[in-house]
Amino acid sequence: MRSPSDRAVLRRLERVGRRLAELIMRGEEPYLDIPVRTLANTIWDPELRMLKLGPKKARRRFFDLNESKKFMQTLLMLSLIVKARREGDYPTIRDLYYMGKHTIEYRDHLGRLRREETWNNQRESNSVIQDIEVLTGLLREHMGIMHDAKGKMVGRVVVRSKGYLIDCSRMGSGAYAIPPNPDALEIVEVDADYVLVVEKDAIFERLNEEEFWRRENCILITGKGQPDRSTRRMVRRLWEEFNLPVYVLTDCDSYGFYIYSVYRCGSISLSYESVRLATPGARFLGLTVTDIDRYKIPRNFIIKATDRDLKRARELLSYPWFSSEAWQRELKLFLRRKEKVEIEALSGHGFKFLSHRYIPEKIERGEWIE
Amino acid sequence: MRSPSDRAVLRRLERVGRRLAELIMRGEEPYLDIPVRTLANTIWDPELRMLKLGPKKARRRFFDLNESKKFMQTLLMLSLIVKARREGDYPTIRDLYYMGKHTIEYRDHLGRLRREETWNNQRESNSVIQDIEVLTGLLREHMGIMHDAKGKMVGRVVVRSKGYLIDCSRMGSGAYAIPPNPDALEIVEVDADYVLVVEKDAIFERLNEEEFWRRENCILITGKGQPDRSTRRMVRRLWEEFNLPVYVLTDCDSYGFYIYSVYRCGSISLSYESVRLATPGARFLGLTVTDIDRYKIPRNFIIKATDRDLKRARELLSYPWFSSEAWQRELKLFLRRKEKVEIEALSGHGFKFLSHRYIPEKIERGEWIE
Repeated sequence: MRSPSDRAVLRRLERVGRRLAELIMRGEEPYLDIPVRTLANTIWDPELRMLKLGPKKARRRFFDLNESKKFMQTLLMLSLIVKARREGDYPTIRDLYYMGKHTIEYRDHLGRLRREETWNNQRESNSVIQDIEVLTGLLREHMGIMHDAKGKMVGRVVVRSKGYLIDCSRMGSGAYAIPPNPDALEIVEVDADYVLVVEKDAIFERLNEEEFWRRENCILITGKGQPDRSTRRMVRRLWEEFNLPVYVLTDCDSYGFYIYSVYRCGSISLSYESVRLATPGARFLGLTVTDIDRYKIPRNFIIKATDRDLKRARELLSYPWFSSEAWQRELKLFLRRKEKVEIEALSGHGFKFLSHRYIPEKIERGEWIE
Repeated sequence: MRSPSDRAVLRRLERVGRRLAELIMRGEEPYLDIPVRTLANTIWDPELRMLKLGPKKARRRFFDLNESKKFMQTLLMLSLIVKARREGDYPTIRDLYYMGKHTIEYRDHLGRLRREETWNNQRESNSVIQDIEVLTGLLREHMGIMHDAKGKMVGRVVVRSKGYLIDCSRMGSGAYAIPPNPDALEIVEVDADYVLVVEKDAIFERLNEEEFWRRENCILITGKGQPDRSTRRMVRRLWEEFNLPVYVLTDCDSYGFYIYSVYRCGSISLSYESVRLATPGARFLGLTVTDIDRYKIPRNFIIKATDRDLKRARELLSYPWFSSEAWQRELKLFLRRKEKVEIEALSGHGFKFLSHRYIPEKIERGEWIE
C-alpha cells in the first residue's frame, strides 16, 4: 500500500506514451481507453462497503473531432507530469494548469488562421489529471502533484518521512500537519487503542491541549470539516495497516453525518479514489439525534434545521451506505424533529463533559453506530 | 513577550472581580471601564507603524439600563474563564458560548414573569471575550481559550512546547501545525536568514517538498489565505525576538495585498491585537503589478480584476499604511491595468522558476516593497 517509487511512477506514465507511439508507428490511430468518472458509472459495492468506479470505459480517439482536443489535453498533461517527475519537481494542480496553458495557432481546412487555448480554466486541466489517475491507477499524490493539505494528527503514533522519525506524541501544543502524500510516510509505531477523527479543528485543539490522546491512549486526527484526500488516506492507513478502530465525532446535523460518510465510503464525485481513501470500518460516535434526549441537551442549545439540512438528510436516507437500521432511525428522527445540535453544546454540562464522559463512555459501551 | 503563567492570568482576572466586589461592599455602584473597540477609536500609529486602539474608554455601569445586560454578560464570561483556568480546562469560544448560555427568569417592576437569554448568539459572547481582552490586556490565547489554528511552519527553527523539543527541519513532507497559543512556545534556536510567509498552502507544500528552506536557509510559514491570530503571532515573534527579515509572498491582487497588510499592520476590526500580532517590518516580496511586465507573464495568464478587486484596491490606496511611494505606484498601476495574476503563473517559465529564481533573486536584489 506504500507509495510507488518515483521510478515506478515514471515507468507507468511512460508506458502510456510508448503504447501511443507504437500505434502511430504502425500507422494506426492513437487512442486512450479511460474509465468513465460519471455518476452513471459510480457503483456501491456492498461487499467492500464503499463507492467505486464501475467497469465502463470511454475510448478517447485522436481522429474523432469531438475527442481530439481532450486527447491532446491528456497527452499535454501527461508530458508535464513526466517532466516534473524526471526533474524532481512538485508542481501544484494550479502550476500544471499554467505550465500547460498556451495558445495554439493553426489553419483550418479553408486556410483561415485559427486560435485555440490548450485549456481555458483549471476545471479542464484538473479533469484531465483525474483521467490520468484512473487511466494509470496512480493517485495524483503518487505523481508528486501538490495541493492544500488540511489534516492534523497527534497522539500515539510515530511516522518516518524523508528519513526523519516524527513522534506525534511529542508535538506539545501543536500538531503534525499531515503531508499531501501520506503514502510517502512510513508508519513506524502505533501504540494506540483507537483513532478519534474530530470534525472541528477547535475541538481538536482543545482535546490536544488537555492531552486527551495520552489519557485515552489514542490518535487524534482532524480534517477540518469536509476532509481532504490526504487526511482520509491517513485515517484509512491507520485502520487498514494497524487494525485500529476509527471513531468519527461531528456535530449532529446532516453536514456532520455526510462528513462521516466521506471518511467511511468516499464521496460520489471522487468515487474512483475510495478504493484507497475510504475507511469502511469507520464508526459514527456522535452526536446522534438520539443523544439530544439521552444527554439532556437544553432546549435553548438546539438549532432549527434549515431547508438545506433537511434536503441533505433526505438524500442521505436514500444512500445504500446509510441503509443500516441505526442510521435509518437517526435520519428519520432528524427529519421529524428538524433540529440540530453542535458538539460544543455538551459544554452545557461542564467543560470536561465531552472529553471525560461523552467520548470514553460511548466508546466503552459500544454506543457508536455504522 | 512570553505567555503569562496560568497563575498570573488568574490573578489578573480575579483582580477585576475583586475591584467590583470592593465597590459593592462599599455600597457603590459597580462598573467597568472598557477600552472602546470601534473604528472611531482605531488609530494608525505612524511611529509603531501599526493599527492600535485609541485612548477612548466606555464606562459599563450595572445600574444603567442600557448597560446592565452587557455588564452582567461580561461578569458571566469572566467567571467562566476563571473557572476554566482554575480547573485546567481549555474551552473553545463556542464552548464558552454554550457554557454561559441559559435563560434567566425574573419579575419586572409590574410583577410580570419575564425571560431573558444570557446571550442569543455567539457574536454576543465573542464580543464580551474581546472586551475582557482589552480590559485585562490579556489575549484570549493567554486565557487558555481554544480556536481553529490554520498555520503551518517548517524550516530552520527549533521550538519547545510542553517540554518537548520540536525541530521544524525534521518534519519530512509534513509540517509543524502552529498551536493556538504560540506564546506558550519557547523559540529555542533559529538558524535562518529570513522568514518566508506564503499565502497559499499548496505553494507552501511544494516549497516544503523540495526543501526550499534548507537550500535557502530560511523558515517557511503559511497562514492559508487570510491569516489567523496564531500564525500572525508566530511571525511577529520570529521578527521581533530574532531580528529576522520577513517576506510575504501572495498573488498579485488586492486580496493578496490586503493579506500582506494584515501581517504587517493588523486588521481594522481587531486593531487592539496589533500591538502583539503585527509585524511592522514585514516586506512584500510579490507578486507586484510591476512584475507582470518584468517577468513577462504571458497575456493569457492574466485575469481580469473584478469590481470587488478594484473597490478593495481603492480602499487600500487610502490607508496610511499603504502610503509609501512604492505601494501608491503599485496600487495605481493595478487600478489602471485592472489585471491580476496568480503566483502560480510563474510556472509558465518552468516549475523551478518560482523557487530557484523569483524568490532568491528578489530577496538578494532587495526588490521587495513596503
